[in-house]
Amino acid sequence: MTTVIKGGTIVTPTEEYVGDIRIEDGIIQAIGRTADEEGAQVIDASGRYVLPGGVDVHTHMDLDVGIARAVDDFYTGTVAAACGGTTTIVDHLAFGPAGCPLHHQIEEYHRLADGKSVVDYGFHGVVQHINEDILKEMEELSAEGITSFKGYLTYDYRLDDAAIYRLMLKMKELGGMPAFHAENHEVIQYLRAQYVGEGKTDPIYHAKSRPDDMEAEAVGRLLKIARLAGDAPVYIVHLSTAKGLEEIRHARAGGQKNIYVETCPQYLVFNEEELLREDALKFIFSPPLRKEADEEALWGGLADGTIQIVGTDHCPFNYGIEKQRGKDDFTACPNGAPGVEERMRILYSEGVTKQRISLGQFVKVTAENPAKAYGLYPKKGAIMPGADADLLIWNPEGSLILTKKDMRSAVDYTIYEGFEIQGMLEKVLLRGKVIVSDNEFLGQKGQGEFVKRHASGPID
Amino acid sequence: MTTVIKGGTIVTPTEEYVGDIRIEDGIIQAIGRTADEEGAQVIDASGRYVLPGGVDVHTHMDLDVGIARAVDDFYTGTVAAACGGTTTIVDHLAFGPAGCPLHHQIEEYHRLADGKSVVDYGFHGVVQHINEDILKEMEELSAEGITSFKGYLTYDYRLDDAAIYRLMLKMKELGGMPAFHAENHEVIQYLRAQYVGEGKTDPIYHAKSRPDDMEAEAVGRLLKIARLAGDAPVYIVHLSTAKGLEEIRHARAGGQKNIYVETCPQYLVFNEEELLREDALKFIFSPPLRKEADEEALWGGLADGTIQIVGTDHCPFNYGIEKQRGKDDFTACPNGAPGVEERMRILYSEGVTKQRISLGQFVKVTAENPAKAYGLYPKKGAIMPGADADLLIWNPEGSLILTKKDMRSAVDYTIYEGFEIQGMLEKVLLRGKVIVSDNEFLGQKGQGEFVKRHASGPID
Amino acid sequence: MTTVIKGGTIVTPTEEYVGDIRIEDGIIQAIGRTADEEGAQVIDASGRYVLPGGVDVHTHMDLDVGIARAVDDFYTGTVAAACGGTTTIVDHLAFGPAGCPLHHQIEEYHRLADGKSVVDYGFHGVVQHINEDILKEMEELSAEGITSFKGYLTYDYRLDDAAIYRLMLKMKELGGMPAFHAENHEVIQYLRAQYVGEGKTDPIYHAKSRPDDMEAEAVGRLLKIARLAGDAPVYIVHLSTAKGLEEIRHARAGGQKNIYVETCPQYLVFNEEELLREDALKFIFSPPLRKEADEEALWGGLADGTIQIVGTDHCPFNYGIEKQRGKDDFTACPNGAPGVEERMRILYSEGVTKQRISLGQFVKVTAENPAKAYGLYPKKGAIMPGADADLLIWNPEGSLILTKKDMRSAVDYTIYEGFEIQGMLEKVLLRGKVIVSDNEFLGQKGQGEFVKRHASGPID
Amino acid sequence: MTTVIKGGTIVTPTEEYVGDIRIEDGIIQAIGRTADEEGAQVIDASGRYVLPGGVDVHTHMDLDVGIARAVDDFYTGTVAAACGGTTTIVDHLAFGPAGCPLHHQIEEYHRLADGKSVVDYGFHGVVQHINEDILKEMEELSAEGITSFKGYLTYDYRLDDAAIYRLMLKMKELGGMPAFHAENHEVIQYLRAQYVGEGKTDPIYHAKSRPDDMEAEAVGRLLKIARLAGDAPVYIVHLSTAKGLEEIRHARAGGQKNIYVETCPQYLVFNEEELLREDALKFIFSPPLRKEADEEALWGGLADGTIQIVGTDHCPFNYGIEKQRGKDDFTACPNGAPGVEERMRILYSEGVTKQRISLGQFVKVTAENPAKAYGLYPKKGAIMPGADADLLIWNPEGSLILTKKDMRSAVDYTIYEGFEIQGMLEKVLLRGKVIVSDNEFLGQKGQGEFVKRHASGPID
Repeated sequence: MTTVIKGGTIVTPTEEYVGDIRIEDGIIQAIGRTADEEGAQVIDASGRYVLPGGVDVHTHMDLDVGIARAVDDFYTGTVAAACGGTTTIVDHLAFGPAGCPLHHQIEEYHRLADGKSVVDYGFHGVVQHINEDILKEMEELSAEGITSFKGYLTYDYRLDDAAIYRLMLKMKELGGMPAFHAENHEVIQYLRAQYVGEGKTDPIYHAKSRPDDMEAEAVGRLLKIARLAGDAPVYIVHLSTAKGLEEIRHARAGGQKNIYVETCPQYLVFNEEELLREDALKFIFSPPLRKEADEEALWGGLADGTIQIVGTDHCPFNYGIEKQRGKDDFTACPNGAPGVEERMRILYSEGVTKQRISLGQFVKVTAENPAKAYGLYPKKGAIMPGADADLLIWNPEGSLILTKKDMRSAVDYTIYEGFEIQGMLEKVLLRGKVIVSDNEFLGQKGQGEFVKRHASGPID
Repeated sequence: MTTVIKGGTIVTPTEEYVGDIRIEDGIIQAIGRTADEEGAQVIDASGRYVLPGGVDVHTHMDLDVGIARAVDDFYTGTVAAACGGTTTIVDHLAFGPAGCPLHHQIEEYHRLADGKSVVDYGFHGVVQHINEDILKEMEELSAEGITSFKGYLTYDYRLDDAAIYRLMLKMKELGGMPAFHAENHEVIQYLRAQYVGEGKTDPIYHAKSRPDDMEAEAVGRLLKIARLAGDAPVYIVHLSTAKGLEEIRHARAGGQKNIYVETCPQYLVFNEEELLREDALKFIFSPPLRKEADEEALWGGLADGTIQIVGTDHCPFNYGIEKQRGKDDFTACPNGAPGVEERMRILYSEGVTKQRISLGQFVKVTAENPAKAYGLYPKKGAIMPGADADLLIWNPEGSLILTKKDMRSAVDYTIYEGFEIQGMLEKVLLRGKVIVSDNEFLGQKGQGEFVKRHASGPID
Repeated sequence: MTTVIKGGTIVTPTEEYVGDIRIEDGIIQAIGRTADEEGAQVIDASGRYVLPGGVDVHTHMDLDVGIARAVDDFYTGTVAAACGGTTTIVDHLAFGPAGCPLHHQIEEYHRLADGKSVVDYGFHGVVQHINEDILKEMEELSAEGITSFKGYLTYDYRLDDAAIYRLMLKMKELGGMPAFHAENHEVIQYLRAQYVGEGKTDPIYHAKSRPDDMEAEAVGRLLKIARLAGDAPVYIVHLSTAKGLEEIRHARAGGQKNIYVETCPQYLVFNEEELLREDALKFIFSPPLRKEADEEALWGGLADGTIQIVGTDHCPFNYGIEKQRGKDDFTACPNGAPGVEERMRILYSEGVTKQRISLGQFVKVTAENPAKAYGLYPKKGAIMPGADADLLIWNPEGSLILTKKDMRSAVDYTIYEGFEIQGMLEKVLLRGKVIVSDNEFLGQKGQGEFVKRHASGPID
Repeated sequence: MTTVIKGGTIVTPTEEYVGDIRIEDGIIQAIGRTADEEGAQVIDASGRYVLPGGVDVHTHMDLDVGIARAVDDFYTGTVAAACGGTTTIVDHLAFGPAGCPLHHQIEEYHRLADGKSVVDYGFHGVVQHINEDILKEMEELSAEGITSFKGYLTYDYRLDDAAIYRLMLKMKELGGMPAFHAENHEVIQYLRAQYVGEGKTDPIYHAKSRPDDMEAEAVGRLLKIARLAGDAPVYIVHLSTAKGLEEIRHARAGGQKNIYVETCPQYLVFNEEELLREDALKFIFSPPLRKEADEEALWGGLADGTIQIVGTDHCPFNYGIEKQRGKDDFTACPNGAPGVEERMRILYSEGVTKQRISLGQFVKVTAENPAKAYGLYPKKGAIMPGADADLLIWNPEGSLILTKKDMRSAVDYTIYEGFEIQGMLEKVLLRGKVIVSDNEFLGQKGQGEFVKRHASGPID
């Protein structure tokens, strides 16, 4: 079937122009002025922006963190994604049992996601240790379309610096992408123990025990190891601090290439003041919320291109249930918050409407750049002939108040409760099919396809 | 008539993809997969790049410099442009008589260009002094589509700093663009007189008497005045030095916006060693050729986006005639060299093929950015629905040796004689019509249209 | 006669230690523990700092500015200097008649100063134009101990850029020091005329018509010309802006050497808010007062060594008489304010006591560095064996309120009226003789000696 | 007894002047012109520099590294020091048994040094782990005059990041100084194992397995942890790379204070080319020799004050015996080289004579700054009244060829064999007593005193 989106304002990272988009077989066939065609489904987009569907490369669906399990599975979580304008996710897996091969969790996640996801999806591998077998598996998984692997610099299954180096070298060889959670482990562990020992267990100590300098340290360390590995690509997930940002600017100013940086909406619009609220447990996640000056710095980093990607770290636990484990001690609270449904609206409203970033930058950081970083582009993240017709019809007029009762995630709260959102997401198309209209989900369980990813590309 | 360019690799600053381009009435109608259409002219572009036609915003056709007149008029010069892949020029005018109004030269140039030019064209106004009448004329000329004005910091008709300031303020108010030749006058005059007084009149003293610090000084001064004018837009023509580049980087690092920077191919591939050649007079132009390190710095500036535009400063004088005036004294040699026909090939071959810039950057600096800077975009400089179908069919395979005998400019030499050029420019379309095919000019005298330009836009 | 200063805390730029100073023939003979000596005059300095006498290298005694004459001659002005802890001045001369040789003013100033000055003194030459005769005179004057020459970038007798370049080259050749008043002339003239034309003649327009960008421009220009002259020495007088400071930092970061920078106390403790006061005319001088952020930046520049010298630009006109010429129009007000008597106290109290600079830095910027910059060191500006015994006995305890009635300058006001000063200047010695004790002047008219200066030295 | 050094050119970091130095009871009593005094010992220093005795804060006398023991004990090593112009050392201790208290090694070292050392001496504590007992011991040791403690980031007894943080906090509290060997452990261990596994065991792999990026990483990490500790003081020993230097510049440019940096002569005059020599084992020490560009960068860092101290890391093993352990495998070679006897001559000749640093800087980095950093100043490292009369009589005329046979260290080689040294060290005074004259040692075993050190001071 042919579908034509008529008369919309097509938005790419560098241009806005009025044009039609003709879609066949789920693929964009042509862009421009189209003749009327009999039998074609026509969607009138006049007065609307036509944007590429969102690509969220940092979700944790159905994540098992030991003391709790994230409450969105791949069905409820991707319905939330779709209703929020995200048509592709790449999920960060839970760790498997100690010493398990990489395939263990990939297979587990196919079981969790296949037949459930309503948006297209991929998986990042997760690395808890490096040896020759693991490196060999990376080659095999790359051939299966899993071209990125995450390591942690903190937590029990963190990588040591030699493992980081070996992971980077392998990714460079394979054209893949290593992603890292960058916080110093030892100092944070010491501070946590100190605070708990002193009876300082309120949520604010979650922030105090994870200081910004210790993100900057880990970022700086990763960048030096990547430089040693010959400017190997390195992807920093959820950057949260001005000081971490400064490390990245410094490395780039010194000529280092292939640095990819992600932040998340929560670090752009909240700061540690939230951890003094009565419902502060909702805001416990890692890295923690920072200072207001960090928010400003991160917006500046988005605006000038230092930060290229906005993900969510979507990892929801019910405030009424799982989060309450932390009510007497922040260290017992499962870390995480929902976000996959809110990302596009928050970033558009707080970023574009408030003129902190341009509309083109919005498209870049929510769609084009994440797709490029993780080998999805131009199938995903682009409006151009040959790309998947994953599209949003977005009305810059109109506004709504964000509130849990209108939302689809299985979790019982949104951290953005009460935010006034400028702009209305009217329709979401996945491969040419309207799957959301006026916040109503029209798709079907399992319609999402696993995307075999290819080598990572540069972000200009 | 409908024309379809079939199966080419369409190149934009950020993307390359295979697609068709359907053209009607000289305008791009649609891009993507097209159905066959009866009666349409089909141009097979498979295996070729399809690029936007070149936009050269720094030419001097038919320029009267007092001691000589540039040997290309608007016919021979634009045939040369067309055969070199440039489909739009914006010409920098000669000064009129002392004290003349701005309209004087605009009218003169319409006489010179209308009915002759074979590519589309516009004019930059030229400013020799500022007063209320002149400022008023700028408003009128802007309404006529002349939205940029050039001032010189050296030569007899140079502007003083107050005039520069007032020009910038006016351009900021009108959304126009002030362009500046940035060299310090007084020190250069002193050095020239010193050298001549010492009998040092060989061509190399042309370079020695115009030191790089004196370009950096003038650039720095312009940037300070622009900052005083509220980050008024400022366009530096033909930047030639590493030190000038450093001034621009410093200003931007301090937060200054709206700085536009142009260099020319001659500064990228030659240095002052040429001024020691027997035929050194061919290389006398201002600013002069610099050091090899400056070449490297300018390539770096292009690669990282500090320099956004490549123009030519095309201003040809015959080596056998006019240039010989300087054979005993470099100060008597008319300044200038040809370049409009060579720009695209040299930059592609020396830049893209040698991997100093990407293909997307080539498109940016030769077409998109100059069009944006001077109010031509997206009519010119873009491949998108609604834009003029000014297009190049460029075969990345094949090569040629650049030589005067194959070229169209009326001048008797090319400074690039003997350069091996990678890539073949097979066809040039102006508003949908093939005007050059395999280096044969197929167009007609006077087919070029005067382009009314609008306000300048930002370059991202 | 032998004099011994006993038990004081001797302060040098890098050290503080308790010791005695033995003086003979006006010269420091030894420092350390001394045996008692019969017949020696002993000054007990226990509990006091012993500091080198202040060196003020920017005064304008008896200055004729055409519309008025500075009200301190070399007697009243140097009594004021002495009572303020300054034992050497280097005076900036008035311009002589158009086209006059350099000697004209030097001779005039010997008439003005010889037999009057009560502190040691030197003269900077003043340059209004450059030609071979002038350059020749510089050689002669250097041999007479006048090793520095000042040029202006604004005002009627300003130097053009070629003259600046030639002055710098000559000074580099002679080991002398060229000093510059750095403000852009043309833009300031235009703004002044604009404001006056609009009836904006209140004192605040003095500041508005001399914007900080136009100081930065002139500073940047000087630095480029000095770089062209082979990192010739360049001395910027009375730097007043953060933006000017930034130019200096940038040049040094790029490797440029031999940059000397002076500011004055008025730019450190006042800003343009003073120009809204009823007695705003007291604060009209050039460069004008700036913003509070500039004050902070200048303190930062002193603290980190970017600014090496604090002078005064002492140029007093009576508020009740000469200054009133400007009461209806700021452009008619003679530019200048007193300062030679206040400098040491203000900088100690606002700088050292408020911990913006260290005591060692105070000594550096008020004595050692100005003496080094202008060829007086180590005769002046140092406490070491062989140096002139120009010394201050300074009690860190105690405080006073600065007020006109206690002061010696012939002018009728101090801009620092009512400032609380920490620390008491108890005694001032000139070449071993106590000339001030507890604010009482004990010296004699004409006791000051003309100092033949030698080549400028580096400041580390 | 009174000793007078007559007529020498006294050199301090900021001044050079001719003067006498009168000494009583081993202390400088006065500086300047002295009257003749009956019974005083007079040393004629006319035409000579009088410099403060060298302070070497990085030696390893009698060091037990498990596989070998450094061949200089505190007698031979300090005779070597004295004959090289160093009158004070602060020794870095060997690790004691695992888990031992800090006192264990301090007591051991008193046994090794007391009664043997011929120059004054102190000890840095060495930290292998942190707990409350260790922190308590630091307080006690500080009271005993041991105010600095060293941690390693590599080797078996390395500190983890939490321990580094706690050490820094404690030092900040006590006014002490933590010193660190900064190299990344895990990556280096991996690379060493890789090379050995591949049979790459030649000395050059010592350098290749310890890449410069891994020094920069460790330096960057230390600086972030110090910043977290509130700009706690941090002392980097033996900095060897341009990249590490860049980390320090970056931190300081960001406002971080209290960073102390040391390099050693071997990194200034050698590079990894030496590891290709037949006798390459002589040059195996850690960090390893780097590239020629690193040498240049380190000289630049000394010249501009980024690096404030030059130590030696003196740790000699006989080439003919201990070093031969590494003849088949670099990992088996004991790390270290002699240097305490060569430091002053090499730095003077390669630095001052070759105009890379000034004479004042030589005094700063070899005497004043190390004394300040480690709480010895102004007792040591200064020529001023009240200071210990540790002095060198240095003749700038004359030269010698450095060669093992003229040297005192017990080791069988010098890495500087054959270097031509400008300048002659004629006499060395320790607390007023001549202990070396014309390279003849005149002192007595055990004459050196243990120096109780106080809090560290700032270096301006």
